[in-house]
This record gives sequence, C-alpha cells and structure tokens, in this order.
Amino acid sequence: MKIIDGNITNVKGFSAVGRAVGIKKGKLDLGVIYSDRICNASAVYTKNSVKGAPLIVTKEHLENGKAQAIVINSGIANVCTGEKGINDAKQMCELVAKENNIDKENVLVASTGLIGAYLPMEKIKKGVIGIKKDLADVIHNPKTCNIAEAILTTDLVKKEICVKEDNFTIAGIAKGSGMIHPNMATMLAFVCTDAEIPCEKLDAMLKKAVTNSFNMITIDMDTSTSDMCIVMANGYAGRVNNEKFQNALNFVCTELAKKIAKDGEGATKLMEVYVKNAKDETSAKILAKSVVCSNLVKCAVYGNDPNWGRILCALGNTGIKFDAEKINVYFESKSKDDKNVENETIVKNEIIVKNGVTANFDYEKIKEIMCKEELKIIIDMQSGNCSATAYGCDMTEKYIEINAHYHT
Amino acid sequence: MKIIDGNITNVKGFSAVGRAVGIKKGKLDLGVIYSDRICNASAVYTKNSVKGAPLIVTKEHLENGKAQAIVINSGIANVCTGEKGINDAKQMCELVAKENNIDKENVLVASTGLIGAYLPMEKIKKGVIGIKKDLADVIHNPKTCNIAEAILTTDLVKKEICVKEDNFTIAGIAKGSGMIHPNMATMLAFVCTDAEIPCEKLDAMLKKAVTNSFNMITIDMDTSTSDMCIVMANGYAGRVNNEKFQNALNFVCTELAKKIAKDGEGATKLMEVYVKNAKDETSAKILAKSVVCSNLVKCAVYGNDPNWGRILCALGNTGIKFDAEKINVYFESKSKDDKNVENETIVKNEIIVKNGVTANFDYEKIKEIMCKEELKIIIDMQSGNCSATAYGCDMTEKYIEINAHYHT
Repeated sequence: MKIIDGNITNVKGFSAVGRAVGIKKGKLDLGVIYSDRICNASAVYTKNSVKGAPLIVTKEHLENGKAQAIVINSGIANVCTGEKGINDAKQMCELVAKENNIDKENVLVASTGLIGAYLPMEKIKKGVIGIKKDLADVIHNPKTCNIAEAILTTDLVKKEICVKEDNFTIAGIAKGSGMIHPNMATMLAFVCTDAEIPCEKLDAMLKKAVTNSFNMITIDMDTSTSDMCIVMANGYAGRVNNEKFQNALNFVCTELAKKIAKDGEGATKLMEVYVKNAKDETSAKILAKSVVCSNLVKCAVYGNDPNWGRILCALGNTGIKFDAEKINVYFESKSKDDKNVENETIVKNEIIVKNGVTANFDYEKIKEIMCKEELKIIIDMQSGNCSATAYGCDMTEKYIEINAHYHT
Repeated sequence: MKIIDGNITNVKGFSAVGRAVGIKKGKLDLGVIYSDRICNASAVYTKNSVKGAPLIVTKEHLENGKAQAIVINSGIANVCTGEKGINDAKQMCELVAKENNIDKENVLVASTGLIGAYLPMEKIKKGVIGIKKDLADVIHNPKTCNIAEAILTTDLVKKEICVKEDNFTIAGIAKGSGMIHPNMATMLAFVCTDAEIPCEKLDAMLKKAVTNSFNMITIDMDTSTSDMCIVMANGYAGRVNNEKFQNALNFVCTELAKKIAKDGEGATKLMEVYVKNAKDETSAKILAKSVVCSNLVKCAVYGNDPNWGRILCALGNTGIKFDAEKINVYFESKSKDDKNVENETIVKNEIIVKNGVTANFDYEKIKEIMCKEELKIIIDMQSGNCSATAYGCDMTEKYIEINAHYHT
C-alpha cells in the first residue's frame, strides 16, 4: 500500500468538484462526486434518533446498493425541516441527475451546517448548472480538485487521502470538527474506489472499517443528526484481493478519522488512546473511548499535565470490572526532528503508572513528551489479549469560545 | 417544612467542627461530626470501580447500620494508596474514637483531594487532640460551626442547609464542584437528623432521596472515586411521620445538589433541565441528564444562545425512541426584582421549540431570560406522564483554566 499525493479524481472513472453557490458568503459550499459508470455503494449513518432529511433520502436511494453521484452542501444541514426538507433534498438529487443525464435514484445527498433552516433552493438550482463541464475538466488536472474544501464548515483544514494497492486505488474526503455553532453538526466522509466489490461485501467491509475508525473518534461526545459515511466502488480495476482491500479501506477511514480528531474545535493536539491486553474487544473499546471522552483528561492533555488519576477515574467510570492494581500507563509522542537532515520521526515513551500507582516518573521528561502535536496514551490492562484505539483531541479555551460566543 | 438559618449543630444531640491541621496550607482541612448518642446510619457510595480507601473503611464500619461520628479531611483523597491507605483511614477513625471515648467501629471516614498521595498522619494525629472540647463548645454557639468550610476543596462557597418539620430537624453539608486539579475529586454530603428511623427504613429513604438529587447532578460527567453521602439519625425527636421525613430528606438532598451544581468549576449559572410528559421515568431521567451533560448545550447556556438544535441533538443521542415532532421546549428564569421593595421572585418563561421546529421566538426576550443566574430548560415530550429533573451548570473558559493550567 502506498499513499499518493492525490484525491478522488485520481481514482479511475471518478471526478469531483466544489463550487461557491451562495449558501455561505463567498465560500465553496457545494460539491459533486461523480462516477462515469454506476457503482456498487454502501453507507453508514448517525445513530442519533433525530435524523436529517438528506440522510433519509440517501437511505432511500441506496436501497438497491447502486449509486453514481453524491451531491453535498455545507452551510445548512437541512435537519428539523419537516416535509419541505425532504422535498428539497430530493430536488438536489434531481438537479444533479438532470445536469449529468443520469438516474435521480442514483444520486445521493448530504448536507452539513445550521439545523432548523431551509436550503436556498434557487441558489442551488443556479449553482448546479454547468457542473457537468467542471467534472469533465477536472480529470485533466486532478490537482485542481477542490471538493474537500467545499464540504467544510468550521473545520480549519481539508481532509483527504489517496492510496494505491495492487491493481486498485482508493481515495476519500471527510469533514467534521465537532458539533459547532450555529449547529455546524456532522461528520461526513466519502470514499471512492475503482475496485470491483459486490454490494453485500462492500456493506460488510465498510461497517468493519467504520467501527474501528470513525466510530472511535470523539470531539465532544455529541453525535450529530447528519453523520454519514458513503463508499462507492465503480469496478474499473476489476477484482481485488479482499484482505488487501479491507486493509486499504481501514487505513483510509482511520487516516480520515485521525484528521478529523486533530482538527477538533479549538484543539492543539491529537490524542490517541490505545488500550491493550483487555479481557475482550468490547471492553477495550469502551475503556479507550471513556478516556478519550473525559473532559478532565482532555484538559490535562492541553495543559501538558500528566494527571494519571483522571485516566484511572475515566476507566473506573465505565462500569467495566478490572483490577486497578494491574494497570500500567505509558505516554508516547511522535515528532519530527527538525535538526536532522533526514527529518526522521522520533518516538519517545515513558511509563506513568505501574500496577495502579505512580511510577515516580520524571515530570520534566513527561512534559517534553506531552507538548508534542500527537500524544499516545497507552493503557496496559494486563488482563487479556484484546486491544482498541480511540482518537480525540485536547480541550481548550478556544473550544468554549467557538461554542459559546458565536451566536445563532 | 421551614428552612432555618442553622446547621448540623442545630440538630439535637449533634455537634460539628472544622480545624486547620496542616494538610492544606493555612486552611481548614479536617472536620468531625459527632452525635452524643449512637445513631442509625446509612450511606450511598460512588459507582466508580476504582474506590478510595476511606470508602472501603466506612462501608465496613457501617455494616451494622450504626455510627456515632464522621471524620472528614480535605486536601488528600487517600485513593490509589494500597494497604497503607486503608490503614491510614482506619487510624483516622481510631484517633477520633479515642478523643471522644467512643467505639472506633462507630466512626466513619471520608477524604477528598489529591489522588495517589498518602495522608500526613502525624499532622492528623496532632490535629485531632482537643477536638472533643471544640465539639462541646460549639453547641453553645451553633453559628460558629465551621465544618462546611473544612470539607471544601476548590469549591467557592460552603454548602449547608437546615430544615424543621413537625417534631424533627434535619440538616446537611456538602462539597463538590467537579473533579478538579490536582484530582480534587469527590462529591461528599453528610446529613444529620434527630428523627427516629429504623436502619432499613433509613437505607430505603436515603436511596430514594439520592436518586433524585445527587444522582441527577453533573458537572463534567466524571464520577469520582470517593463520592459518598451519609445520613445519621440519633432519634432524639422520637418517631416521625414517614412521608414528611422523606419529603424533608428529599428537599435537603436536592438543595445541597443544586448548591453543588451552581458552584461547578468555572460556572456562571445553574442549569436545571426538566423533562416532562415522557413515556416512563427512566427515559425522562436519561433524556434530562443527556441535555445537562452536553458540552455544547453548556457552552450555549454560557453564551446566552438559544441554540435549540443542540438540545434536540442531545435528546436524540440517548438512543431513546421518541417523536421529535411532538417536542416543545421552554426556557424559564427566576430572578429577584431589585427595584421592588419586597424583593419578589420574577419568573419569565418563553417557548423556543414547538412540535420539533423553531417557535419563531423573539431573540432579545430569550437572551433576557438566559442571562439570569438560574436557567430552567423545560422539555415537554408530549408522549406520557413521567418527569425528571437534572441539575448542572454552564461551561466556561474558566473550567478549562482550572482543569488545564493548575498543574499536578
């Protein structure tokens, strides 16, 4: 597997573009992903029981496991908008279908932004005109593909990745940095591949990939009403090795998830919590998530404070039974050595807790580890052989500022 | 029932004092509650699976349902301290028993503060000497009772209440404002009454009171390793009306819980979430707690922003099935009218959401309601007749400051 400097447009048969149609002032706010032939497609959705209109329409259009395009807008989430919202989402699909001369049932739709507001359909109608030509043009110059920007809300950086393995390519984009004001909800991810994968297989593989990636990140524990991850496979590359495809899909989803976590609202660093030697996988996941979710751990990580009591407390809060006297905790950082000409990655690792009590660590050494951009907290339960990793970020004054002081 | 300006020492047979013994620099850090005769006693404890040493010793001493004194220290929590921690907690009981010439098995113990550190037993040993005289003196001048201060950690205000009903008096103190640095964990509450209540009855009544009070508050969702609520009943007042006693106990616990919520780390206001007309009590509780726990709702309340999308999102996150199109949301504030000579309480109430969509409210009116010190969010599920209230506070930059920048 090789990471390449590319995007969705580098996957055979796919093209994607972003446009500024006026939903947000002067910013890219509409995107279309298009395949020149019908794809097998699969999706996973938010578990929030309040669901957005685009999600309902996408689910309907995906019932047959086929899709050819996705239309996405940012700025307005089209959630809590009743029947009008459903009709607007359907119309977005129709507009893109008509423009590209494809079946409207094969167009999926996603929206992210303000809850409770209606989409400006006139602007979208005008905005879609001519997008067919853009989609054709971008293929000749994949580097100009700007869709990753068009789907952002309060995200600070675009999130995309492209990998090649064997005979196939797989690329994805994502957005999400918390549920932020004014209700800029939603984590969205779109993955495209030229691999040939039957529908049922694609469903199973996506579920598996999402379980260990997007479902293991948390910014502030609020699951949005519009979360969605879609994968489209157009089959141009022909049959692929299943295991290698699953690995590549896992990798793409995990990398996108980490990019989302790192870009969490107000975050200064990525926090990775790795629980190992737990008695079973479910408890490993619950334990890892509880630590990555704890406001107090997040604040300590921000302050470069090795406050291990908060980590043990978060583990204890899960209700999972464990022997606290067996727990070891390590902090690990990865950073680039700027002084080194080869720009190597340096890994530093220190033990914080040994058998449930302080390991009498050197504060200065730990602070040096904690002040890097990526902190890995390794928790060894010493009570089995299962493991899980959860991703999140630290919590800062900026998070409060973003979520309290920008008004509806 | 009448609230009186008093404390534990106003309950017949009880006295309580605080002292500065040197665990914290120059601050009150040790307290003793004493009854001149043996009480029926009951307690509820943290559900965190990592439990502090004082909790283990108190549980052991309470097995027979009898107690005569409680010794409490602040500054060090005596958690994650192994066998030495257990011995230290036992020794605290012995010291207080010896000083007061009572059975050490009838002394309970609670600690709050730093996790992972040992108690300075020499200081505590010296500090307990002469406390018997203080306990006798304070009865003549109940207003000098300072124990409510001695149990505080980062709390800003002391929390105490005393009520009279029929023939009995009931008074309590509490501490807690989050799990704060350096791991100043713990919510503690101690309630004393002269009512005569059999042990089993007292157990049941305390559980009932705690379920709807302390178990319905949240500052940051982290359950500490040392949370504890103890009630002692010495029987001086003789038999009491059960219903009236339960009501008084509920009231005392709820008032203390609200005081804790209002004093949450960095909080500027109390947030009360009242879910009504839910299909059952369990779901009413889960829904109310989910809203009061949401970082995003807490930030919006801080910013006086009527961001109702976040409230619906928090409800949806519970996994409880409901019809979003039936939900009404109201904001209500209570405030004193300073201009009015009688200092009346003014209640203002506005509808925010009607049947799941915006009620087209007046922003300025809502902001006027939101900027008061106490905000009640009323959520009408319109799908049953059960209700629940959860208590919490808003989330501010100060919370981050307290939890990130004061170092271990």
